[in-house]
Amino acid sequence: MRRTSRFLSCSSILERATNVKDSFWLTSQHSITTSGPDLVNDGSSSVRRKAEYALYKGKAALSVSPVLPTFREVDSGVSRVYKKGCVILTFWPAVGVRKYDWQKKQAFALSPTEVGSLIGLGPAESCEFFHDPSMKSSLEGQVKKSLSISPMKDKTGILLNFSVVNNIQKTNERFSVPVTKAEFTAIRTVLSYVLPHIMGWTQAASPQPPSTATHTPKEQIEERPDPSLEWGR
Amino acid sequence: MRRTSRFLSCSSILERATNVKDSFWLTSQHSITTSGPDLVNDGSSSVRRKAEYALYKGKAALSVSPVLPTFREVDSGVSRVYKKGCVILTFWPAVGVRKYDWQKKQAFALSPTEVGSLIGLGPAESCEFFHDPSMKSSLEGQVKKSLSISPMKDKTGILLNFSVVNNIQKTNERFSVPVTKAEFTAIRTVLSYVLPHIMGWTQAASPQPPSTATHTPKEQIEERPDPSLEWGR
Amino acid sequence: MRRTSRFLSCSSILERATNVKDSFWLTSQHSITTSGPDLVNDGSSSVRRKAEYALYKGKAALSVSPVLPTFREVDSGVSRVYKKGCVILTFWPAVGVRKYDWQKKQAFALSPTEVGSLIGLGPAESCEFFHDPSMKSSLEGQVKKSLSISPMKDKTGILLNFSVVNNIQKTNERFSVPVTKAEFTAIRTVLSYVLPHIMGWTQAASPQPPSTATHTPKEQIEERPDPSLEWGR
Amino acid sequence: MRRTSRFLSCSSILERATNVKDSFWLTSQHSITTSGPDLVNDGSSSVRRKAEYALYKGKAALSVSPVLPTFREVDSGVSRVYKKGCVILTFWPAVGVRKYDWQKKQAFALSPTEVGSLIGLGPAESCEFFHDPSMKSSLEGQVKKSLSISPMKDKTGILLNFSVVNNIQKTNERFSVPVTKAEFTAIRTVLSYVLPHIMGWTQAASPQPPSTATHTPKEQIEERPDPSLEWGR
Repeated sequence: MRRTSRFLSCSSILERATNVKDSFWLTSQHSITTSGPDLVNDGSSSVRRKAEYALYKGKAALSVSPVLPTFREVDSGVSRVYKKGCVILTFWPAVGVRKYDWQKKQAFALSPTEVGSLIGLGPAESCEFFHDPSMKSSLEGQVKKSLSISPMKDKTGILLNFSVVNNIQKTNERFSVPVTKAEFTAIRTVLSYVLPHIMGWTQAASPQPPSTATHTPKEQIEERPDPSLEWGR
Repeated sequence: MRRTSRFLSCSSILERATNVKDSFWLTSQHSITTSGPDLVNDGSSSVRRKAEYALYKGKAALSVSPVLPTFREVDSGVSRVYKKGCVILTFWPAVGVRKYDWQKKQAFALSPTEVGSLIGLGPAESCEFFHDPSMKSSLEGQVKKSLSISPMKDKTGILLNFSVVNNIQKTNERFSVPVTKAEFTAIRTVLSYVLPHIMGWTQAASPQPPSTATHTPKEQIEERPDPSLEWGR
Repeated sequence: MRRTSRFLSCSSILERATNVKDSFWLTSQHSITTSGPDLVNDGSSSVRRKAEYALYKGKAALSVSPVLPTFREVDSGVSRVYKKGCVILTFWPAVGVRKYDWQKKQAFALSPTEVGSLIGLGPAESCEFFHDPSMKSSLEGQVKKSLSISPMKDKTGILLNFSVVNNIQKTNERFSVPVTKAEFTAIRTVLSYVLPHIMGWTQAASPQPPSTATHTPKEQIEERPDPSLEWGR
Repeated sequence: MRRTSRFLSCSSILERATNVKDSFWLTSQHSITTSGPDLVNDGSSSVRRKAEYALYKGKAALSVSPVLPTFREVDSGVSRVYKKGCVILTFWPAVGVRKYDWQKKQAFALSPTEVGSLIGLGPAESCEFFHDPSMKSSLEGQVKKSLSISPMKDKTGILLNFSVVNNIQKTNERFSVPVTKAEFTAIRTVLSYVLPHIMGWTQAASPQPPSTATHTPKEQIEERPDPSLEWGR
């Protein structure tokens, strides 16, 4: 599967993420909704809980963590997904025995469909994703991220190869992380759990807290989601 | 699998949906329950969150979104599913490169059993559904909707073919949407998540909000669900 | 798999169920907990929502619905499953075209392990369960319920055969319900969803409401669950 | 799969568990968070609900129950998993027909990855885990726990063999529990449900209660999780 990311919402999350590390994480409904006008105010303080699944291997470490979508009120009493959710894969290199340098981390945001690709990956199958975090900006094409997932020769698991080519900083970073069958099963299990969350279906299904949402101009919301945000084929 | 829909509840949702677009969406417990006498009144405002999974392809776009069932109090302190939930597949045609005409949309409501059919569809299997949204009305047989799902020849995914024959408007609309393995896995994952929701099992399992439900005459509720609402074989 | 039920808790539910039909259903946390001393009192009224999955076939109808476990406070600040949950299969006969007689219903309570058996049933596999609702009472052996599940010859689904032999009333009732692949997939999907519920794991994982629980004598709770309640091998 | 546990967090739970039996169980969000500074105070009393899945066999009994992670506020308004969750397998011996001695119990804490290993275990596959509850203490190597899971010869299920060698007490205890296909399917279904819980993803996704969390010194939390807590390869 070869594709180039148009997942602007999550790549923008990645940009912000370098500054606001918290936005990397699966956070509670009201910490999320505070990031949009669909503000929740239920009288409780706003402590966000963060979760991840981290693997530490010989050459690099890998962390898997989801980002929930944000909702925005688009009409009186109706709010819709404003910023898509995703699952962030963060890689950072080993700099010694069991020592890893978090400052050198690089992140890749999986879209709901790419998450589906991992969930459904057969034991002998491979897949590869290509993202351009600067797509549709003046820097488009300057940074290329590619993630390839392939079965290990000894059939004991899969191998994740991630590379980030940055033409501006003239850097080319590579990360390689072997993932055992057991670890991949754990990853697929939580991905299956979290997919409805990053698609916003779970928030839509849960009782709504009181809202003090401001209003977004109608024209912004009447139209359907911009197809250019969708993966091409 | 060949069958004709008697899924009146959701076809009626489809009729209303052309006017009330919001009823297309998975909405929160209390936005839903307000649609029935089993009214929720927990002091919070009623902001509904809406979610979907949309795919934009060459000839048409496809949106998948669930509709929760509504409950009605049928006896003192007991409410039961009054209107069945479903999953709405909405198709709308491409009218240019990455341009789609939402006004020309056509919708198909999958029953819980049809959702089960998609979840369990084998890689080489096909299935086909036939619905008559006007069933049991004076217009019965005037509108015929058929959805067929079959594997793509190159085995890279499935093909959805949807046609709506309207003898009243003398129209015959066809939509064809290819769905990749990854996209179909994402769809099946959220369908598995949402099936207990549209069947009402998740609402039944969750704590109940205060109710100001009005009363429905006993005789309406003592009987079992009308078999004529059930799929035939 | 041949076994005789010692699932006293749910068979007692079945006995009560003939009087209290509501106890058949998956009900909200506080309608359930009111059935035990672990009483919930959160100021809301007690409207129970009920859900099922019903199939109407030529000879009989089948309804699938879960029963949550009840909890009882067994020590200060600690409550444990007091009555096990289960999934109730209710069969009632056809008495004409699309007419069914609910008064002639017979029910079978699946234990968590029997639910696991259905979830994991392979396409060509069969299983059979035997229950004695009067076990350990003076009527033990007087009523025998057996449920067999086997693949249909044409491979289009499974066949449920349920028989109830009652030596007291000198009756022998038989129900036969064919279930399509799609319907069985829907059943297995909701069974997978509901299994953690009937085992009490979901209630244990959710925030607890204020409790006014009375106390159960220590000796009743210090011991482990009575092995005689567990299925033999 | 051969590995030695460095799962300190859960082995410490096991040590405490011999005194505080309640810590064995999946407990509610606020009973758990009370065990850390990320204290929940929502005005309700603190009744914990406990759940398990227990099997009573000829030579021994097996209980499966999860332990949720604890969160600690690591920065203003942000809390992170402080103590990892796990799934506890508790074995205790039969001392007669349907009589079991809970005082002779031995427990094994499955890490999220080991849970993944069980969920993904193929019908003909085996796996084995090795834990040292005293790892990194002065008693390291004195107690060795090993759990092996292998298919039964007659293909009717799996066999769990658990041994605890304690060089200090000069004891060597062995437990053997056969698990049927149906029971293993039930176990895998609840393990799939509970994995996101023990990884903290579900708590992170749920609305947060008011927090009166104390503050943990920044340096403790800025760094990534200690790799030495992660399984080696």
